[in-house]
Amino acid sequence: MKRQFTFLSVLFLISISLFASNNTENKKKYYNPKQILATVEKVADWQLNSWKKDGMIYPKWDWTNAAGYVGMYHLGTISKKSDYHDILLSISKELDWNTGPERFYADDYCIGYTYSKLSLKHKDPKMITRFRLLADSIVAQPHTESLEWKNEINHREWAWCDALFMAPPALSMLSIATKDPKYLEITDKLWWKTYDYLYDKEEHLYYRDGSNFTKREANGQKVFWSRGNGWVMAGLVLLLDNMPKNYSTRAKYISLYKEMAAKMASIQQPDGSWHTSLLDPERFDVIETSGTGFYTYAILWGLNNGTLDKATYLPVALKAWKALESAIQPNGMLGYVQPIGWQPAAATQSSTAIFGVGAFLLAGTEMYKYTKKSKIAKN
Amino acid sequence: MKRQFTFLSVLFLISISLFASNNTENKKKYYNPKQILATVEKVADWQLNSWKKDGMIYPKWDWTNAAGYVGMYHLGTISKKSDYHDILLSISKELDWNTGPERFYADDYCIGYTYSKLSLKHKDPKMITRFRLLADSIVAQPHTESLEWKNEINHREWAWCDALFMAPPALSMLSIATKDPKYLEITDKLWWKTYDYLYDKEEHLYYRDGSNFTKREANGQKVFWSRGNGWVMAGLVLLLDNMPKNYSTRAKYISLYKEMAAKMASIQQPDGSWHTSLLDPERFDVIETSGTGFYTYAILWGLNNGTLDKATYLPVALKAWKALESAIQPNGMLGYVQPIGWQPAAATQSSTAIFGVGAFLLAGTEMYKYTKKSKIAKN
Amino acid sequence: MKRQFTFLSVLFLISISLFASNNTENKKKYYNPKQILATVEKVADWQLNSWKKDGMIYPKWDWTNAAGYVGMYHLGTISKKSDYHDILLSISKELDWNTGPERFYADDYCIGYTYSKLSLKHKDPKMITRFRLLADSIVAQPHTESLEWKNEINHREWAWCDALFMAPPALSMLSIATKDPKYLEITDKLWWKTYDYLYDKEEHLYYRDGSNFTKREANGQKVFWSRGNGWVMAGLVLLLDNMPKNYSTRAKYISLYKEMAAKMASIQQPDGSWHTSLLDPERFDVIETSGTGFYTYAILWGLNNGTLDKATYLPVALKAWKALESAIQPNGMLGYVQPIGWQPAAATQSSTAIFGVGAFLLAGTEMYKYTKKSKIAKN
Repeated sequence: MKRQFTFLSVLFLISISLFASNNTENKKKYYNPKQILATVEKVADWQLNSWKKDGMIYPKWDWTNAAGYVGMYHLGTISKKSDYHDILLSISKELDWNTGPERFYADDYCIGYTYSKLSLKHKDPKMITRFRLLADSIVAQPHTESLEWKNEINHREWAWCDALFMAPPALSMLSIATKDPKYLEITDKLWWKTYDYLYDKEEHLYYRDGSNFTKREANGQKVFWSRGNGWVMAGLVLLLDNMPKNYSTRAKYISLYKEMAAKMASIQQPDGSWHTSLLDPERFDVIETSGTGFYTYAILWGLNNGTLDKATYLPVALKAWKALESAIQPNGMLGYVQPIGWQPAAATQSSTAIFGVGAFLLAGTEMYKYTKKSKIAKN
Repeated sequence: MKRQFTFLSVLFLISISLFASNNTENKKKYYNPKQILATVEKVADWQLNSWKKDGMIYPKWDWTNAAGYVGMYHLGTISKKSDYHDILLSISKELDWNTGPERFYADDYCIGYTYSKLSLKHKDPKMITRFRLLADSIVAQPHTESLEWKNEINHREWAWCDALFMAPPALSMLSIATKDPKYLEITDKLWWKTYDYLYDKEEHLYYRDGSNFTKREANGQKVFWSRGNGWVMAGLVLLLDNMPKNYSTRAKYISLYKEMAAKMASIQQPDGSWHTSLLDPERFDVIETSGTGFYTYAILWGLNNGTLDKATYLPVALKAWKALESAIQPNGMLGYVQPIGWQPAAATQSSTAIFGVGAFLLAGTEMYKYTKKSKIAKN
Repeated sequence: MKRQFTFLSVLFLISISLFASNNTENKKKYYNPKQILATVEKVADWQLNSWKKDGMIYPKWDWTNAAGYVGMYHLGTISKKSDYHDILLSISKELDWNTGPERFYADDYCIGYTYSKLSLKHKDPKMITRFRLLADSIVAQPHTESLEWKNEINHREWAWCDALFMAPPALSMLSIATKDPKYLEITDKLWWKTYDYLYDKEEHLYYRDGSNFTKREANGQKVFWSRGNGWVMAGLVLLLDNMPKNYSTRAKYISLYKEMAAKMASIQQPDGSWHTSLLDPERFDVIETSGTGFYTYAILWGLNNGTLDKATYLPVALKAWKALESAIQPNGMLGYVQPIGWQPAAATQSSTAIFGVGAFLLAGTEMYKYTKKSKIAKN
């Protein structure tokens, strides 16, 4: 009798707890991947509508758009709607699979990522004929020039941190699309050249370019730009996706990734975002969604891949995700994107830009994946 | 009887004097606004025909043309013909209201002046959607970089004096078109940044850019470029047109305007023009119509607005106007425009360019306004 | 009887020798101009087909293509097929006879050579309306700036050696097309400005630009780039073609030409080519066809014109020609072209580019002319 009572008690307790849990779900106390996907699609759809209505602000091959296409492509891999890949195919055809006008300027071949992805998807090597010829030229260069910020060095070398998003994902994806490892090899070589020059090994952050080494914020701190470091972390994660698990230098990338992730966690703002001046957040004292989007993406990627530990980084990611969600306007427009620039500057409620949307789509896609496999309580 | 006689005598004298006056007009001893308008339209029509026949030399969004559109627009406000505004609307539509490719390069958004004007005229805010987004980016920058002439600073800041024509009229007009004062505010801030760096407070002239501080002409004088200072004076006047009468810093602009006008009056050449090297006029010893056009415009504007005194400046303006007229060929082509450049250089009888025509149209429009309200004797 | 025998013997010996000679020709021991033309056309046709199939990699006005058009035009003057001139006319019309976007950047008006040639051929001055206006601007500049490699000087002056191919042939050809000598005069002036700055009077070679003065190869030698010096020699020869025989400075050009030809002969590699680093050929230890093509062209031009002596230079030219032929793939693709760059770098069997093809077409056209008038034994 005592045993039976115990058994029933346990059953009862389980029922109670199941009921409670169910109840919690009804009250949406857990993240719902479907809802997340709906949010992400809403933001993407606002962008598609804006293109339809007003056209693109900058040329279709421009980095502003090309960076956005990366997020659009990722969303297309989890969405049931074909719109996100369709638009990229249509744009690429209109561009006749050309990259931008400046041959060795990373900004101008960022779009090679999209071409390579589409070439793989459609099994059509002609989509990357031109990008491949360009990449062959990049491979052929000795790349012996210093990254000192003069003589338009950014038109030849990855001499500013944004380049680490523009170029490595595109070139490493080209290696997958062509099965020729040389584009990954040059990426590997040039990644560390930029690392040696722009990475501050004390602060674990990248300078935007060499002209910033001696600049200081009003509070005496070095100048580290949020979106700039966001370009690096997102570029790093996209590169890791394209790199064989047994690649010789992979461990170095992972180590860099963890070091930067730890730094980002340590300087996250109470509002969940990162402000445009990472070490002087009061200078522009407001959330900023392009840098935050990239960090959220990069950290969620580490959680999805088991590279980062959940106890430390999940709270960071969720707090950042909330900040991002708070910047979405009722019509789906993502606000608080710092406009085009090259240093910390203001973002406002109404400032949006396609590359900021792209960062959000990357973050949202990882958030969807994470919440689909792991139940996460909202709080 | 005596009174009647006196009365008749007065009548007679009045008749005589009226006859004399009429006679003088028949002999065209006064400027005739209709004739001036006809001359201005003839020059503008030559340009329109040249575009029709040979196309534009440079892209439609390019500063060369965009600077010309400013004069074309102004002429359109006094002409009975709709051609001058029609062509601008047609070009703008063809460009889909895009500015040039380089985001922060003042040359590439000079055309924003025309877009803003047309947006106001047609009450269509979509005409400035793109220019406004670009301007938002400009507003968002901290603009803390030095104007030192290196690292392509002109692609980010108003580091050369031409920029003061390319940018301030466009941005201040955008403030009027959008009723948002922030574009005028950034203009105000950046105007004085350039003033502090490039204005020579002894010579009351602008250096073209920082690379000219130490250069000297063969005669030992500093190098000041006529068209360069013409860009400044015309830009200043266009900005003043867009600035509320009670704007906090307006008095500073007026004071700068008067200072430069006095300087220009003091170095006008005997031929009525300003040569390409302002302080070494013998170097290229010939009239030049782009700089002269801008100065004539700026000085007539001051006469029309009561900012300059007639006794001093009307003779300067009339002498300059004559020099301009002398450069018009029988078919309406304006000659003696120094070709595209960045320093004093030669102009020839047959050298023309749209931005020089634009300067003439601005000057001619003010000349028309002045002669319409004031009778000016020719001599 | 003895005399008759002798006479018959001589006849017999002559017959034998004639037969032997004939026999040698049947065995193709002499270069056959028809075969050479067929080879050159095959390479050109591969290029035309590649354009048809994949489009052009870079814009139609771009220097990469414009440099290729020069060779295509020359081939058109010896070929019975009209394809080579037809395609140039069609491209020029599509471009509406515009040069590239950067006004004073020699790369962007290289295409003026083709426009001027076509304008002459079709007796249509409208084909050069725009190029001429641009050239007028170039003539109007004082060109007093130093060629020091900073402040984007290459956008205003011929501050890198490639410019000597891009600009002088185009401007000097414009003087022929317009019968106005001033374009040749400015070319003459600017040629020697670049010579003074970039020519190493000890090595008899051109530095690529001022940033190379202090660089050294691993073997301690100065850095001289093969294609860079190829641009110079081919540009020099094209300029000489456009220069009156009695031109005041012609002797100086001829002297420079001979000096460089002697240098090239002395550093030709055993494989018949010039490697990308002229003084450190082991650095990229492989034939390279763009530099080699230009040298072969320039040397054969000197042989055809009697400027170089046959004993010394014919063996150099033939050895180089063989190296070029060895780089042609069975389908007509010219390989071993160093990709776009600005310094010595690798070339591979499969690396091709239109400007390398252009160099080959120039060389092949001169080779055809030479073999047509002189019997040359193969060995």
